Amino acid sequence: MLIIGELINTTRKSVREAVDTRSRELILQIARAQVEGGAHYLDVNCGNLIQREPAGMEWLVNIIQEEVCLPLCIDTPNPEVMEIGLSLARHGRPMVNSISAEEKRFSTVLPLIVRYKTKVIALCIEDAGVPKTVADRLRIADRLIADLTAAGVNEDDIYIDPLVKPLSTDTQFGLDVLETIRGIHTAHPEVHTICGLSNISYGLPNRRILNQTFMIQTMTAGMDAYILDPTDREMAGFLRTSMALLGQDRYCANYLKAFRSGL
Amino acid sequence: MLIIGELINTTRKSVREAVDTRSRELILQIARAQVEGGAHYLDVNCGNLIQREPAGMEWLVNIIQEEVCLPLCIDTPNPEVMEIGLSLARHGRPMVNSISAEEKRFSTVLPLIVRYKTKVIALCIEDAGVPKTVADRLRIADRLIADLTAAGVNEDDIYIDPLVKPLSTDTQFGLDVLETIRGIHTAHPEVHTICGLSNISYGLPNRRILNQTFMIQTMTAGMDAYILDPTDREMAGFLRTSMALLGQDRYCANYLKAFRSGL
Repeated sequence: MLIIGELINTTRKSVREAVDTRSRELILQIARAQVEGGAHYLDVNCGNLIQREPAGMEWLVNIIQEEVCLPLCIDTPNPEVMEIGLSLARHGRPMVNSISAEEKRFSTVLPLIVRYKTKVIALCIEDAGVPKTVADRLRIADRLIADLTAAGVNEDDIYIDPLVKPLSTDTQFGLDVLETIRGIHTAHPEVHTICGLSNISYGLPNRRILNQTFMIQTMTAGMDAYILDPTDREMAGFLRTSMALLGQDRYCANYLKAFRSGL
Repeated sequence: MLIIGELINTTRKSVREAVDTRSRELILQIARAQVEGGAHYLDVNCGNLIQREPAGMEWLVNIIQEEVCLPLCIDTPNPEVMEIGLSLARHGRPMVNSISAEEKRFSTVLPLIVRYKTKVIALCIEDAGVPKTVADRLRIADRLIADLTAAGVNEDDIYIDPLVKPLSTDTQFGLDVLETIRGIHTAHPEVHTICGLSNISYGLPNRRILNQTFMIQTMTAGMDAYILDPTDREMAGFLRTSMALLGQDRYCANYLKAFRSGL
């Protein structure tokens, strides 16, 4: 199980202000809290700074790495900003968030993945748009995996995001994701699957329980990576519980540890 | 999704006392509460009364049916008590809880299933004992389904219980159940699967979260019936949420209703 901490993102108002005013302490607090919450990677996203995104990324990557030894997940659609982040990353192997099957995005981001030997999140989107069916998602995933491995990327370094769409717009969308996960893991046992959880519950009440339940369901279908808030203790409790029940926790040791720490 | 309310069981002290003293009101309260909680069947179990089990079953079945129109799930290892329950059942088709592949049990219970045209819970146990592997469980399930259908029972009336064993004794046991469910539904799409949830968490702390998570996981693998406490509002909330995410709730109507009723 791979957890990417999602909290260092300038769409969050406090993070935006901290980056705007170059206030280290709040960023470092968030970074430390995510490490303590069990994150394996820290996502860094300052895309909404627009023209100031390159300088924002440089500042964030540098100060986070002074304090925290986790590898980073560089989260931007801008290849130049991606390269700034990757070139500064110095703890472990960084992750690219993200590539897709859109032709221009694929061709501009692939060289960075190869040059910096990164792990990569690959979105099931193509130039024709977001896929409508499970078959479309699997076709795009196959193509992404084929093209990435042809360029020398190991299957074990690929994290396919099947794209989670809101259940409120179509009650089939949750099931579509589960079937896509099963299809990918059957065809490509070494490839990982990943998603963010909050899209599924968009537009519905009581989003927490939907997100928690969807995490357990997608884990049961084989998903093995999430972009989430690792400081959310309830979510972390369900994650540890679900791992124990799926046989991913020898002697239930982590479950018992989580229980003792009050998760 | 089929929910069997588990609360009318004389292993619960208050129920035992009510049966011993023939106090109708508590039993009827429990029956009504389970109906309101969404149960489709009410389980009736007074096996620990031993010699007084036949009279206890007769009394319980009669008073419950005066008050409540749900069909009953007659829960006893004793074929004579089973026949008392089945012969008195008059709302819908009763359910037998349970038959197994143990030779004597199978041969004594099968005639009752056929005579009373019941639905049936079939446990994956044989004379050699509780199965150790997924393959053993699937072999026993295949045999139960073959023998029951040969006797004229419809596949749609069969609920296979894969037998849930405590995770605390082997961290593989949760995964074994999930694989068994998938195997049964692949081989026999018309057959249902069912389980009780509390065994999985036996011997571990914070059993509620384990039971909740295991319900979501087994539903994701295809389980479509549970024996549980329908008055447990948290569990009911997860049940409705999981159904919505699995595309079993058109327009999320039941999810929204559950939210409005405060589940």
